[in-house]
Amino acid sequence: MSRQEDRSMTNHVTVFRVRYAETDQMGIAHHGTYLTWFEMGRSGLCRDWGKPYARWEAEGIFLPVVEASCRYKSPARYDEELALHTQVEQVKPHSVTFRYRLFCGGRLLAEGRTRHAFTDPEGRLIRQGHPLIQWLRERSAEGL
Amino acid sequence: MSRQEDRSMTNHVTVFRVRYAETDQMGIAHHGTYLTWFEMGRSGLCRDWGKPYARWEAEGIFLPVVEASCRYKSPARYDEELALHTQVEQVKPHSVTFRYRLFCGGRLLAEGRTRHAFTDPEGRLIRQGHPLIQWLRERSAEGL
Amino acid sequence: MSRQEDRSMTNHVTVFRVRYAETDQMGIAHHGTYLTWFEMGRSGLCRDWGKPYARWEAEGIFLPVVEASCRYKSPARYDEELALHTQVEQVKPHSVTFRYRLFCGGRLLAEGRTRHAFTDPEGRLIRQGHPLIQWLRERSAEGL
Amino acid sequence: MSRQEDRSMTNHVTVFRVRYAETDQMGIAHHGTYLTWFEMGRSGLCRDWGKPYARWEAEGIFLPVVEASCRYKSPARYDEELALHTQVEQVKPHSVTFRYRLFCGGRLLAEGRTRHAFTDPEGRLIRQGHPLIQWLRERSAEGL
Repeated sequence: MSRQEDRSMTNHVTVFRVRYAETDQMGIAHHGTYLTWFEMGRSGLCRDWGKPYARWEAEGIFLPVVEASCRYKSPARYDEELALHTQVEQVKPHSVTFRYRLFCGGRLLAEGRTRHAFTDPEGRLIRQGHPLIQWLRERSAEGL
Repeated sequence: MSRQEDRSMTNHVTVFRVRYAETDQMGIAHHGTYLTWFEMGRSGLCRDWGKPYARWEAEGIFLPVVEASCRYKSPARYDEELALHTQVEQVKPHSVTFRYRLFCGGRLLAEGRTRHAFTDPEGRLIRQGHPLIQWLRERSAEGL
Repeated sequence: MSRQEDRSMTNHVTVFRVRYAETDQMGIAHHGTYLTWFEMGRSGLCRDWGKPYARWEAEGIFLPVVEASCRYKSPARYDEELALHTQVEQVKPHSVTFRYRLFCGGRLLAEGRTRHAFTDPEGRLIRQGHPLIQWLRERSAEGL
Repeated sequence: MSRQEDRSMTNHVTVFRVRYAETDQMGIAHHGTYLTWFEMGRSGLCRDWGKPYARWEAEGIFLPVVEASCRYKSPARYDEELALHTQVEQVKPHSVTFRYRLFCGGRLLAEGRTRHAFTDPEGRLIRQGHPLIQWLRERSAEGL
């Protein structure tokens, strides 16, 4: 993926620093924390696009994670400033996949993906379309 | 408090090991984790006494923390087996205070307290008595 | 994989309860926590097999995660008792892969994998064999 | 303390949003997270003042927490933007106390304190003065 595409409208960048509590005794950020960072990236993207995730839940649509993966290429250290690039990779009728790339300066630290179901508050799949899902499909296609 | 009292019915002991994710780059368990351990102690005590906290919430009573404190005397390290002693220290009409002491072998690592309000699901104080609160008062007085 | 194999010597079972702090406002255990649970499973397996991971680090061998994935099939809830099955799936010259399956009663909640490099304290790959790595290969092959 | 003093040089403000992972099934930010936020405030203050905490550790001075307390007045919710005010309250020969106040808009959500020892990498108290400790005492007195 070219730098040009990185700056497309489908890409959200979150900048933050590694917290001390996020390190472990190996002296690097704990690998489990990355999933929390990815979540922060999704939140930022939805907020930025004008549909904060809190509103999704208020309208009765939840996006539980059904699959997550991450490849760790280089460690992140305490207080380093990181840039997380978040994209909607694919919207299907019953799920959405986000893609993440984490950078420190120009260095790629990690990349990952999460796939989410669209469910109601009780965790049941939403079988029919919903304006928010439709919006997500259209909005994420815009910049391509 | 004497050892005798420690073994009273008002005392619950939870045994667990320090997780790797709970350490930080200082090579010791992160101080924030202790509040999570204390919570595990409260959960164990309520379950042991026959009124799991999940049931409290199911009956519409929540116990949000309104005050917490901890004194850290000696560090806890990865994979060490710890014993957390939890007690109900005081039950008032609108709050309950738990006390915690954390041991590794015979060594006291930390002691702390949390105070909790009794609220409804919306976070409003429960003004009137409730059978569960009454039960907690009586049950915690038994062993004294 | 048959139940028979599950009970082989290459399989370690960790039993634990979901902590309140591990839930999120969806009312289920947060997906990031699963990686911490998997880590607890690895720790238990190494301890059980007589080579606690703390000893690995003391001997200068670290196992940072280079890849992690998880499929979430059914949510875990506060205070539920879970059983985590951990296996060494593959030992290569420079990495080891663990496999995890998480159960609540007979229900499979999630399955995942983590791949770990063998590094020195500075994070450099250990290029040559080491008795602990050799031991891991042999020990994990025993039950197959 | 007046608003005037709040803006003194001894006061650092960190602005951040509540992460989804930081909520629990009560639908509010988990109380243990506040200690992690306070830590983020200390980190920000030290960085802002030109002596990042990473440098302290590089020079062999560690600041483990020996005491922590927090009063929770009003809950914090997912994605809310919070402002954490951090101050050095007192510098003693062997310890430093930080004070924190957490706001959402004009509303005070919580206030807390942490006390830290000055130790070497092995956790032994630093008995003699050190330029960084001297600096902290002088710098924190400036704005008063």
